[in-house]
This record gives sequence, C-alpha cells and structure tokens, in this order.
Amino acid sequence: MAEKFLIGLDFGSDSVRAVLVSSSGNMVATAVHPYARWKEGRYSDPAISMFRQHPLDYLEGVEDTVRSVLAESGIEPALVAGIGVDCTGSTPCAVDANGTPLALLPEFAEDPDAMFLLWKDHTSLAEADRINEICKRGDFPDYTRYSGGRCSPEWFWSKLLHILRVNPKVRGAIHSFMEHCDWITAELTGCAVKPSRCAAGHKALWHGEWGGLPPEEFFAAVDPLLVPVRRNLYTETYTADTPVGKLSAKWAEKLGLTTETVVAVGAIDCHVGAVGAGIKPGNMVKVVGTSTCDILVAPGVDHCIPGICGQVEGSVLPGLTGLEAGQCAFGDIYAWFTRFLSYAGKVSLPDLEREAAALPDSHVMALDWMNGRRTPDANELLTGSIYGLNLGTTPPMVFRALVESTAFGARAIIDRYEREGLKVESVTAVGGIARKSSFVMQFLADAMNMPIRVAASDQAVALGAAMFGAAASGVHKDIFAAMDAMKPGFDAEYLPRRDCTERYQKYLRLAAASEKEIMS
Amino acid sequence: MAEKFLIGLDFGSDSVRAVLVSSSGNMVATAVHPYARWKEGRYSDPAISMFRQHPLDYLEGVEDTVRSVLAESGIEPALVAGIGVDCTGSTPCAVDANGTPLALLPEFAEDPDAMFLLWKDHTSLAEADRINEICKRGDFPDYTRYSGGRCSPEWFWSKLLHILRVNPKVRGAIHSFMEHCDWITAELTGCAVKPSRCAAGHKALWHGEWGGLPPEEFFAAVDPLLVPVRRNLYTETYTADTPVGKLSAKWAEKLGLTTETVVAVGAIDCHVGAVGAGIKPGNMVKVVGTSTCDILVAPGVDHCIPGICGQVEGSVLPGLTGLEAGQCAFGDIYAWFTRFLSYAGKVSLPDLEREAAALPDSHVMALDWMNGRRTPDANELLTGSIYGLNLGTTPPMVFRALVESTAFGARAIIDRYEREGLKVESVTAVGGIARKSSFVMQFLADAMNMPIRVAASDQAVALGAAMFGAAASGVHKDIFAAMDAMKPGFDAEYLPRRDCTERYQKYLRLAAASEKEIMS
Repeated sequence: MAEKFLIGLDFGSDSVRAVLVSSSGNMVATAVHPYARWKEGRYSDPAISMFRQHPLDYLEGVEDTVRSVLAESGIEPALVAGIGVDCTGSTPCAVDANGTPLALLPEFAEDPDAMFLLWKDHTSLAEADRINEICKRGDFPDYTRYSGGRCSPEWFWSKLLHILRVNPKVRGAIHSFMEHCDWITAELTGCAVKPSRCAAGHKALWHGEWGGLPPEEFFAAVDPLLVPVRRNLYTETYTADTPVGKLSAKWAEKLGLTTETVVAVGAIDCHVGAVGAGIKPGNMVKVVGTSTCDILVAPGVDHCIPGICGQVEGSVLPGLTGLEAGQCAFGDIYAWFTRFLSYAGKVSLPDLEREAAALPDSHVMALDWMNGRRTPDANELLTGSIYGLNLGTTPPMVFRALVESTAFGARAIIDRYEREGLKVESVTAVGGIARKSSFVMQFLADAMNMPIRVAASDQAVALGAAMFGAAASGVHKDIFAAMDAMKPGFDAEYLPRRDCTERYQKYLRLAAASEKEIMS
Repeated sequence: MAEKFLIGLDFGSDSVRAVLVSSSGNMVATAVHPYARWKEGRYSDPAISMFRQHPLDYLEGVEDTVRSVLAESGIEPALVAGIGVDCTGSTPCAVDANGTPLALLPEFAEDPDAMFLLWKDHTSLAEADRINEICKRGDFPDYTRYSGGRCSPEWFWSKLLHILRVNPKVRGAIHSFMEHCDWITAELTGCAVKPSRCAAGHKALWHGEWGGLPPEEFFAAVDPLLVPVRRNLYTETYTADTPVGKLSAKWAEKLGLTTETVVAVGAIDCHVGAVGAGIKPGNMVKVVGTSTCDILVAPGVDHCIPGICGQVEGSVLPGLTGLEAGQCAFGDIYAWFTRFLSYAGKVSLPDLEREAAALPDSHVMALDWMNGRRTPDANELLTGSIYGLNLGTTPPMVFRALVESTAFGARAIIDRYEREGLKVESVTAVGGIARKSSFVMQFLADAMNMPIRVAASDQAVALGAAMFGAAASGVHKDIFAAMDAMKPGFDAEYLPRRDCTERYQKYLRLAAASEKEIMS
C-alpha cells in the first residue's frame, strides 16, 4: 500500500503555514502565506491594542499554501488522507446563522468588528472586568477557577461582549460567535461545527464540572446582551483527533484535493505544538520565544490546580488533562535590555550573551516581571526589578541576571505543579530561543534542575496539526500512534550542571517582597 | 588702620590649595599645588586600597602655594595676620619623639608605613574589625557610640594598629601617631601640638563623656601594641578658632611671611567647609559631589544621635555640637549609570539629564546604595536596586529614578535628625553637583521639602580655613564674627515645588525590604 500523507495547517499571528508530511513523519513540503490585508495594517490600531483580521486573509492563505505544498511535493492528491488545523486563540468572529463571518457579507466587508479579533486584541478590558466581577461576587460558582481564577480580555466572552456593546449594527446581525479554529474546519468541510475542546476549555470557560459553558443566568447577570448569542452556542466539544468531516466539493476543487480528505477538529496552536514535539505525562513542552507557553498533560488530575491559565480534559490529548502555563516575557526581556543598552549605539544580543557566559554569578539578581506574571498566579500589575547593583556593575552582569531570572521564572511554574502533586521530570523545548541560545538553555536546565531536550523541528506546531489529521483520518489508529510514528528527534540535550538552589531561594524571597510591595 | 589678610590652607586628597582673603571676605589670590610624589603613584597600590602620602609633598605644597598667593596679591607680608588649616582625615602618620614624621628621617624616607595614611586607605580592615569586636563585647563602654556605632578602617586607631602590626621597624621607632592637621600646625609654628577636637572626636573616638581618648585598658584589650603609643597621645583637644602659636622663624622665612602670623588649630576639611559656607543651627551644609558630606551644628545636644557618623562638641564651631552624616555615593551613581550605558558608545551625562528632566515620574524607582549606606546607620553591605521595570522602560526613566533615589537618601538623613529632635530647616549646598546641576538640586529641594541655597564659592573649604585664621589671630573677635564678615553669598536658591511624600514613603518601604533581604 502506498504511503499516506497529511497536511498540517498552522494559522499564526501573521501568516498561515502548511506542511505536507508523510505518515512516517517525513516533512515533504512547506509553504507560508503572509496575511495580505493584515500586513497592510488595514483593520488594526496598535495604539489602542486593536488587532483584527479579515477572514479572506485566512481563506486565501489556505488555498495558496495547500496548492503550493502539493505542487512542491508532486504527490497524488488522493494520497492526502487528512488535514489537521491549529489557530491562535481566542481569535473569534461574529457569524450569521449560516456560520458565515459577518465580514464576508457585503455590508460588513470593511467593519473591523465583523472580523476576527486576534488573540492579542485588548479592546475588551472593561468587559473582562465585568465578567470577573460577576465571577467573584458569589452569586454563581467561580467559572474562572479552571482558567487561573480570572477571565482575560484576550478571551472569548470578553471579546463577544465588547463587540455586542460597541457595535449595534453587528449586534443586530450576529447569530453566534466562533473561534477561528472552529470556523475554519466547518468552512472546509461544509459540515456542522464541531467546537474545539481546547479553545472552549482554555478560552471560553467551558468545563465538564458545570456541564459545558456557564449557564444563561450567569451571562444575564454579566450583561443581558450576551443571552441570545449564548443560546446559539454549543454544549458538546471535541478533542482534536475527532474528524469534523471530509473536504467539501468546493474546497476539494479550490485546493486540488479529493473529497475523501478528512479534516480534524481544530485546536489552539501551542497545544498542538506540544503534541508535535512529542509531549507525554511527566514531560513538559516549553515553547521558548519572546514569551513562553508551557504545556503539560497528566492522567486523572482530580482537583483544580490554582494559579495556572487553564486545565481542561482532553485539550491537548484525549484521555489526559491538558494544563497550560507560561511566562509573559522571556526573550522579550533580553530584547528590551538590548534596546535599553543601545541608547548610545547598537548593542548585539550575541555579544552580550558571549560576555555574560564568561562571567561567574555576581551580586546582581533580577525579577523577570517586565511584562507582568502569567504563571503561577497571573498578575499583570507586577513589574521587573534588578538588585545587588554596585558602582562596578556592568551590562553583561545585569544581562546574566536577567537570563537567570527568566530561568527561575520557569522553575516557579514547575514548583507550582509539584506542590499540586503533578510530576514534571523533563522538558522538551521548542521555539526560537530553544534552537538559538545554548547559553539560555543551559541556565534553564540548571534552574529547573532537569534535562531539557530541544525538538529537532522548527515546525512542531504544523507537524502536530498533521498528526491530528493522521489520527482523525485513521492513517494511524489514534493520536498516540500518530505521535509515535511521526514525532521529530532531538537536536540537543541540556543536563543540569550545577546547583542553583540558594540563588533560587533568594529569587523567591525577592519575588515575595516585591509582590507584597507592589500590591500594597 | 590697614585691612588685614588671612591665608586658608586646604590640604585635599590630590593637592593643597592656598587662598589669600581679606578680613571682609574678598578673595584676593588662590594657588594650587598638586602633590608631586603622590601624582607619580610612588607609595600607593590601588589594587589593595593602599594610599600613602609623603610629608614632603605637603611641605613643598605649603611653600609653593603661600609664596604664590603672596606674589599674586602683592600685599605686604606683615598684613597677613593669620593662617587656618584644614586637611583630609583621618590621615595620620607615625612620628618620633620630636613630632617628626618617620618618613622625614633618612632610614624611613621610602617606607610607605612611615608616611601619612590617606583617609581612603583601606589596609586596616582587620584592625577595624578587632576594635569593633572589643567595643561590642561589653567589657567596656561602646566607645564608638558617638561615631555611628562602628570604628571604620579609615580611622585613626585602625590605621595605627595596622602599622604597628605589620611593620616592626616602624613599631620600633614610633613615639606617637599624628593627624595631618595636627602635625602641620605644629610644624609651621614649632610649638607644642594642639590636637584638633574635630579630628580627635570624629576619627579617634575622643569624647568628653569618657574624659578624652578611651583608656589604656581598652587598648590593651584590643592589642597591647597600642598601649605605649596611647601613652604618648593627648587628652586635651582644641577647637579650630584656637591659636597654636605664631609662624616659626624657619617657616616665616620659607614662606616670605613674618613671625607675627598666627596659625590656628587645624580641622577636617568638610567641617571647615561648612563654616566657609556659613553654617548655623537649623541650616545644614551639604557638600554634594561624587558622595555627600552633611554637616549640622546644634546647641546643647543632650543625647547621642544614633546612626550618624560623628557627634562631637565643638568639632565645627565652638559651643555647638558638630554632627556629620553623608551619602556614600551621589554623583558617583550618575557616573556609574553613564558608564553602564556607554557599553555601545559614549553617553553624555548632560544629555541624560536633559531627557530625564523632560519626563514625568514613572513606574521606575531605585535605591541609592550602589556604594553601601553611610547615614543613617552605616552599612557597607547594602547594594542598589532598580524597581518597576517594564518592556518600555528607557535609560532616561532609570536615570530620573536614580536622581530621585539620591535625593530620597538625602531626605532620610534629615529624617533621622528630626526623629532625634534636631531641627533642620534649610540647606546650604556646596560642591560640584550643587553648582552644575539644577536638575539634581531641584529634586533635592523637593525630596527634602526645604529650600536649598547654593553657596557662591567653589572654595568654601579654604575660605573656612581663612575664617579660622581670622578668629585665632583676633582679626575678628571670634569665629562667628569672622563668618559674618567673610561668608560668601548665594548663587542660586531652589524652593520645594511639589509633594514627593508618596514616592518617598514607597522608597522607605523598598529600602526596608531590601535591607531585610540583604541582611538575612
């Protein structure tokens, strides 16, 4: 029998990437399509953190990249058995009763409120506050308890409420509100929506404990505007190894594929990336870039882990609890300090790294909260600090302390899991810094006191999507078999080399004192 | 009657300065002589903080500068009624039974241990520890209680013990140990030594409460080596308005003066500078430069003020308690940050100031302990910190916070005095920063919440010495009359313009938390 192939579609913040992978994990072709309207900044305003994306950017991207990987690979379209999809999130859009994003209707074609609100859109700060107020008032269970105890302005309900409040025209036309990863699979198949467990659980307060989404009465208390839309939403959600259906005739033709190609339920990118990197219980996948996203899976977590930003059954892998944590800034801190030092001339980050690597630990220490803290215990009011300065302190000393602080921030996440009885024994790292900086990775291994292996792929996310395509289409019997067959190897391994306990304890003391002062 | 003239001799760290001033305060001539051997670094080793000065550097400097001001002014030598002297301190030297510094004897001419140990010489760290150990053991009163509760390695007894311990040859020849300001006046007059109250009280644990220097038994407990030298030291000390005697024939000839010129008792430079700037009760004189020295006088202080670095009756002005405090680093912090930012290219301090001045207060705050803390409560283990950093923090924001922290450090000194019932109502500032940076001075006035006037003289120290020359020689009836007649005007006045209370309270909280952590 001829080998089968899978396509992974990875919708990022700026572009969509398609990979065409064999069922044995051989990466055959890749293509990237930058979103055309987004690139021109047509519907966004960074000054007020408004970031909107037009659905046509996504649709054009799918057609372009899938056709491109097919052409590049030269394989028979009939051999493409499945497509998996991941998207940023929460990135929702107002849709009509047909599930069509309003921006695809002529009267809303240029209305940013009728488009997708990208994950990092912060226009709904006031609405998030309102949701949190009702959650904490005691009239209802705290529906944010599995999401770190707080609804973010970046999440589904905050964004929906904002659109309903500010745009009466959209409010009059909206039937429902859909996550990017839910809409795109329904669009490609023409089938009924199969909402993503991952997006629903991590971004829309969905949880089995309360039988799905929070009840209507809760939303009525937040704002009655939410009630009609809530009625048109879902109760059931699906793990990403579930088939939504097969490609519609329209999309089979557009893409040059057959109507036998199965499309899997979508999910959020970092969760899918963790699967692409080969996550398993005890092995955390850490996406180490400008910020970090830390994904863990564990069997049978029987209680709510406080202070992390999401705990959802099956959000990463079926049958396992998916747990998401992260650091608000990681590489961003190094970039900030490089910018800071460039006041009088251009400073290079590699130069700083080289000089810092040659130093011993110094009196200087830092707190890594320059962009607030996400995990453990999200708090965006926290700020960074630098301690132990004297008249001989140099930039490489401070840089070294900053790197150490980000590593200790990573350790604090592991500590929270351990406190709650979840074992973390090793880390698989993916992302730009994981592949570029052995200096930072060694600090991480030392600080976390566990081995870190770097996945030998810079396309773990798209690869994870392809794995879900393989599971949903039956090319492999389930997602675990797909991971076994398709997972990438490792590029490098970092073993803990020295004991940082004393400095870490000091970091924790400084952190406690700083938080107390900032919140006083 | 013809107007009289006075000479002020100001021995600094690198040079001696002479000023020739009329009895009405008119600055007629000035001259500076850099120490020749010192400039060549002949007897010092900065790597171990060993800083020694040869007595010939001082003697050559006196001759050169006094002859120079006389020549420049063209006045009759007989019109020079008095000479006042100030020196750095504690800057002592081993002397023989004639009061001759051992380095002036042929067999010790090149031995650094037979020379003056400059104030900043730190070779006697171990000896200071030993003195403090005995002071705290409880067998004796704590003889450091009027000196901040701690004997510094920069002080008289630490330096003496160090020389006795490390140099048996000097130990065999030493009769006594003399402060620079005591030796120079004895040398110029050929009279018996009149020890300076100021140097004895602030640097040699002399205090009226225990009837002079600590007793022999105390020094026997510290180290029996000290006992014979202690026996040859003094009990009586003198305020700087007291005449030592008249110029000896030898020195009158060397200098081109008459043997009618009266030489006043010496004192330590910053105390004399405070007099030169017109100090009076309630008006603190703050020397604002790389570090600060804060001098206050008060009538009848009836208890020991804890945590300041010296409280001595008459050390500044007769009949008043002289109090010395200070900040370990002030302008040095700005210089450090400028150096720090110059990692990639030269940064100019005025540019930073200009940009920082244009900013509002930001989230950034700092602690000014980059060189430890001197007052209140000396602690050289403390270090600096910077708080409130985010990814948008820029160098001018941090610079502004650093300036603010030095201003709050100044406020903390005033607070200590107020807590102890001493009134401070205004500040007279002298020193480089006082005259150069209106940005910093305005911050100081705001932080201290009191008016600050900048003395219109950059030679307040030498002028103060001349005032003491006027008092000792009877040109004015006492030092107060001399100050009235000769004190300089003011260049600028800074009034408090805004309320910093909230930020200052935050500074105090950060300071308390940081000290607790560092000392834990």
